[in-house]
Amino acid sequence: MLVGGALAVSAAGIGTALVPGSARSAKQQFAGATRRVTIYAEALPGNLVGYGLAPGQATVPGPTLEMYEGDTLEVTLVNTTTQRLSIHPHGVDYSTDSDGSPLHNSFNNPGETRTYVWRSHEMTAAAGRRFMPGSAGYWHYHDHAMGTDHGTGGVARGLYGALTVRRRGDILPDKQFTVVFNDMQINNKVAPDTPMFEANLGQRVEWTAIGHGSLFHTFHLHAHRWADNRTGMLEGPSDPSLVIDNKDLNPGSSFGFQVLAGEGVGPGAWMYHCHVQSHSDTGMAGLFLVRNADGSMPAGAQEAIDRFHGHVHNPAAHVHGG
Amino acid sequence: MLVGGALAVSAAGIGTALVPGSARSAKQQFAGATRRVTIYAEALPGNLVGYGLAPGQATVPGPTLEMYEGDTLEVTLVNTTTQRLSIHPHGVDYSTDSDGSPLHNSFNNPGETRTYVWRSHEMTAAAGRRFMPGSAGYWHYHDHAMGTDHGTGGVARGLYGALTVRRRGDILPDKQFTVVFNDMQINNKVAPDTPMFEANLGQRVEWTAIGHGSLFHTFHLHAHRWADNRTGMLEGPSDPSLVIDNKDLNPGSSFGFQVLAGEGVGPGAWMYHCHVQSHSDTGMAGLFLVRNADGSMPAGAQEAIDRFHGHVHNPAAHVHGG
Amino acid sequence: MLVGGALAVSAAGIGTALVPGSARSAKQQFAGATRRVTIYAEALPGNLVGYGLAPGQATVPGPTLEMYEGDTLEVTLVNTTTQRLSIHPHGVDYSTDSDGSPLHNSFNNPGETRTYVWRSHEMTAAAGRRFMPGSAGYWHYHDHAMGTDHGTGGVARGLYGALTVRRRGDILPDKQFTVVFNDMQINNKVAPDTPMFEANLGQRVEWTAIGHGSLFHTFHLHAHRWADNRTGMLEGPSDPSLVIDNKDLNPGSSFGFQVLAGEGVGPGAWMYHCHVQSHSDTGMAGLFLVRNADGSMPAGAQEAIDRFHGHVHNPAAHVHGG
Repeated sequence: MLVGGALAVSAAGIGTALVPGSARSAKQQFAGATRRVTIYAEALPGNLVGYGLAPGQATVPGPTLEMYEGDTLEVTLVNTTTQRLSIHPHGVDYSTDSDGSPLHNSFNNPGETRTYVWRSHEMTAAAGRRFMPGSAGYWHYHDHAMGTDHGTGGVARGLYGALTVRRRGDILPDKQFTVVFNDMQINNKVAPDTPMFEANLGQRVEWTAIGHGSLFHTFHLHAHRWADNRTGMLEGPSDPSLVIDNKDLNPGSSFGFQVLAGEGVGPGAWMYHCHVQSHSDTGMAGLFLVRNADGSMPAGAQEAIDRFHGHVHNPAAHVHGG
Repeated sequence: MLVGGALAVSAAGIGTALVPGSARSAKQQFAGATRRVTIYAEALPGNLVGYGLAPGQATVPGPTLEMYEGDTLEVTLVNTTTQRLSIHPHGVDYSTDSDGSPLHNSFNNPGETRTYVWRSHEMTAAAGRRFMPGSAGYWHYHDHAMGTDHGTGGVARGLYGALTVRRRGDILPDKQFTVVFNDMQINNKVAPDTPMFEANLGQRVEWTAIGHGSLFHTFHLHAHRWADNRTGMLEGPSDPSLVIDNKDLNPGSSFGFQVLAGEGVGPGAWMYHCHVQSHSDTGMAGLFLVRNADGSMPAGAQEAIDRFHGHVHNPAAHVHGG
Repeated sequence: MLVGGALAVSAAGIGTALVPGSARSAKQQFAGATRRVTIYAEALPGNLVGYGLAPGQATVPGPTLEMYEGDTLEVTLVNTTTQRLSIHPHGVDYSTDSDGSPLHNSFNNPGETRTYVWRSHEMTAAAGRRFMPGSAGYWHYHDHAMGTDHGTGGVARGLYGALTVRRRGDILPDKQFTVVFNDMQINNKVAPDTPMFEANLGQRVEWTAIGHGSLFHTFHLHAHRWADNRTGMLEGPSDPSLVIDNKDLNPGSSFGFQVLAGEGVGPGAWMYHCHVQSHSDTGMAGLFLVRNADGSMPAGAQEAIDRFHGHVHNPAAHVHGG
């Protein structure tokens, strides 16, 4: 989001409060603006590699980048690692030299700094009362050069993040979470070390789910549901969209939606997990902690969290039931 | 559906005629009603476990449960087995103590009886002329506690069923079928023992398809198609929905649609199957028998059924063709 | 499309210019027409089998067949091979004897000629202001009899193609491409021998993507995006459809969309590939060459093409980066 005119980002996987008032009122003036951001690709402990907005601040996933349709984002990528890498966006517009692929020699060699330009546009009228789609969507970015010409090594080690392109007038969230199903891990972590996302009862929470790697997955969130469309909300009573709480999340795909934390179900430590049984059993699960409206811990939540940390994430250990 | 004021259910996998007249006229008065149902979890032959509405009546899948948006369903689960198990719903509203998961100590120990409360709601207005989705959908319920903390053992053995939440005004079907792709089986059966669903030409048939297990699948129905949206029908000429006859059916996902049996194609023994070639070849296929309008057997159908039962469901056996 | 009143087809995988003027003006008069086409199934080098519109002209994929809702297509299939085979369509209407399956003895024995009749229809009004869907869609056809009762052998060897059913008023493309993800290959080819699709900047290009085999895939196109609905375009500002550039493409599924070649990104040799990392790394990738508006080669494109042909499609070879 925009805070003080600078490109604001949320440390993905943590969720940061936006500045609703200013952001909501300010968004028009930035339409069509060009913004610049410098991203540092850095090696991290545990053989990970991350993107960060300042030296020493790399995270997995990387920062959530946001634009409004019509905006341009100039991403200056600094490669502090010893391998070639790049940044390839989904959904937005870019020339071949910003493709982020070895096919176009569009990558950073070790130590190299390179700028990638991402543009976006609104829908445009076509014939037959139809419109060519604009850039709005819950997209993502990732390496396309480390390890293989498709960035398999970089993606496996954590070089990915969320890219959100909004339409003017879109409802802004209070918090944002990014969940990446990457082979058998979530944000390159396994339960019980997977992220615990937190919000207060009733807060508008925006989830961006991204798939990576070489396995198939399904994302399931307990006690919440969303429309399987661009916003996760219905445009009206005649919006035909499916309403779902479980969706395929396969390599290269992403989707996003907003929910009101605990709407109709109350606070608690709700699970999110891959619904592929052999995946959830071995650690592809995490918690969405919905606190009371005043931010206090709801009854029973700490016990559930402790239980989650105590679970053996191995089906064999439970084969005889509780 | 509601028959005589009691919660009516259709023995899933068989399809039972509803009482269109009474159900259609009666549905309003039940809006926002609270209903109670007792479900018995029982061990079945062949190492299966099923849910049933009375002792000795467990089936795989379990009974199809139905609500209108706004209704509450109080499910009293009786565990007659020797393992812990639960019932976890998709799509509807529930508190953590009705989550059906070990995370919240929400399960039945062997011999234990426990009540789970499922609520539902209509869409609610949000900002920007948008609406937060209601509960309507072709959902499902399943065990979340047997074998592992995600119910992998219970789901594998048959503890699952369909849960349909309707909007007031939705068109009611004449028959309902539930198809569960669960690892390499359909409703825990392999061809030629997979269910043969039956309807008369022109009857409005509602399919609910559910995915479970740890493998990916695609559901294909011959000679019929549906809109890939909430109802399977188009809201009008400008409804942009894809029209499909093949859809991903992966673990934890479900969808439903209505077709007019044999519309535009006539009666016959139509195939439904997983379109993953190695899955259909090894038995993930069944029949949708569309009888003549008067219920009589159409020409050639019995021969097709006999052929289906005679097929060797093993690719090797056919490698040289017919 | 219709050219000179005869059923026109595009050699799939190549893309042929239509005759926009005549086709656009002529389409009405053919509504509800019955057309006939003869297709020859022939063995091809490399253990392939293809469908073609004349002896010696079989291709993989086969020819793209097109109808308008209401049309009937009578497909006379000539089996010139030594194995039984058939042609089974998705999406359209057919009687059991045109099902193309051994279940209904609907196949061609070696040397046999057989006619299959495919019908189609427009949406029809149902109750509740809803409509039962019509036949319009980006469908496909494939063998359902060679090797196994599900045609696993025929599909694996190339017996498949695109079937497009349009609504009157649909925007016609300038070029058409068919991309089939079939196990670890694209149109039964592996990079760098996968098809290079070509268009000039700004041309309206229609993609039909089809999934086959026994593996899961995701189709990704660089620098272009489409609405995840029937046409790939938005019906208007309130069309809730997701806009995507990556979509699951699993066995038996198909989808289509139109893009303006290079819209907002310019000309160049853009990649399309399976986004499953282990699949793209081993050759499930190809090029979409967007030439300059005058058809000339854009700067850098030939170098990219040469680079593509030089790439070793083997992750091990790139494990140390560029």
